[in-house]
Amino acid sequence: MMARTGRRPGNADTRQQIVDVARAQFAEQGYDAVSLRAVARGAGVDPALIHHYFDGKSGLFAEVLQLPLDPATVLPAVLSGDLDRLGERLLRFFLELWESPETGPRMRAAVRAALSSEQASARLGDFVVREVLGRLADRLGSDRALLRATLTGTQLIGLAVVRYLVQAGPLRQASIEQIVAAVAPTLQRYLTGRLPTDRTDTAEQG
Amino acid sequence: MMARTGRRPGNADTRQQIVDVARAQFAEQGYDAVSLRAVARGAGVDPALIHHYFDGKSGLFAEVLQLPLDPATVLPAVLSGDLDRLGERLLRFFLELWESPETGPRMRAAVRAALSSEQASARLGDFVVREVLGRLADRLGSDRALLRATLTGTQLIGLAVVRYLVQAGPLRQASIEQIVAAVAPTLQRYLTGRLPTDRTDTAEQG
Repeated sequence: MMARTGRRPGNADTRQQIVDVARAQFAEQGYDAVSLRAVARGAGVDPALIHHYFDGKSGLFAEVLQLPLDPATVLPAVLSGDLDRLGERLLRFFLELWESPETGPRMRAAVRAALSSEQASARLGDFVVREVLGRLADRLGSDRALLRATLTGTQLIGLAVVRYLVQAGPLRQASIEQIVAAVAPTLQRYLTGRLPTDRTDTAEQG
Repeated sequence: MMARTGRRPGNADTRQQIVDVARAQFAEQGYDAVSLRAVARGAGVDPALIHHYFDGKSGLFAEVLQLPLDPATVLPAVLSGDLDRLGERLLRFFLELWESPETGPRMRAAVRAALSSEQASARLGDFVVREVLGRLADRLGSDRALLRATLTGTQLIGLAVVRYLVQAGPLRQASIEQIVAAVAPTLQRYLTGRLPTDRTDTAEQG
């Protein structure tokens, strides 16, 4: 048997301890404010051990919230490739996540949990802005890229709410191809299309 | 003092009794399956008394769920007028609901409650399909009108989730005019624009 020391050795208990500390810190301070260093300190482990178990802060957060995947791991593949087809690629990837018997139930649970309270919404919101919308905006590299990415996010989450959470109306039965045909142009317009500038508004906001 | 009879007289207690019975019946059977006659029977009142207190089934449901308004009352005005500007009118009306200090908090509460569980989602879903999307589809009177209305609904609810519930990213600070400029064209396209038919899909579904 190993002797106990101040710093916990790497084993299953330690991994769980890291997750528990991270859950508490994320809940209290929000995604952006938590550092892996602070989590390591709270768990009494070396920061390197967190990197051994988790793929960075986003991976640790995905684990804490039991998200079905870590955007940092999967997004690069979706974002690479033709910008002119990015709307359709994002949509298909998103729909597959919700359709899959493996990831779908966890997506539903995560979104229901995230929308259950203001605090939970803000917690997931920070993460999504940083790790999903931020990455998408970086890929666009255009004017108002984060606004474009966020508008894209509104259409995707609204589609998920109606088709997978509320399961209302004709969208429940619609096929993936019907949805792609109807919705991909919306996403593509938000991503790379003309985004009208409102002059009144710019003037008002100085 | 009035003598008690089998049928309750019309007063505040009776009104509350109707709401309580309706809440239980909607929760158990869903919006579509409940009739005002059945609510009246359950509350031991004459059906006419329900009509005295509430503006039909949708009004009773709006009261039960503490929705800020009854679609049957407010939608006709929004839906009347030019079809070519319906997307913008719907969007402005929807945003005003969420922005108003009177109705906004109740919209947030209602949507959070509706998304909290499968049963609650289905309950609000039936109502929204029947009383909101159905009315919108009737106004369109076009091919695949209910699909068009539902797609419109996905963009509206997604916008509300991101701006008012998650309050994430640049949409939290965006002005109404910025949002209208960016999102109204999406709604108008769903409502009256070209909705691609997917031939593969039609073939697959027979």
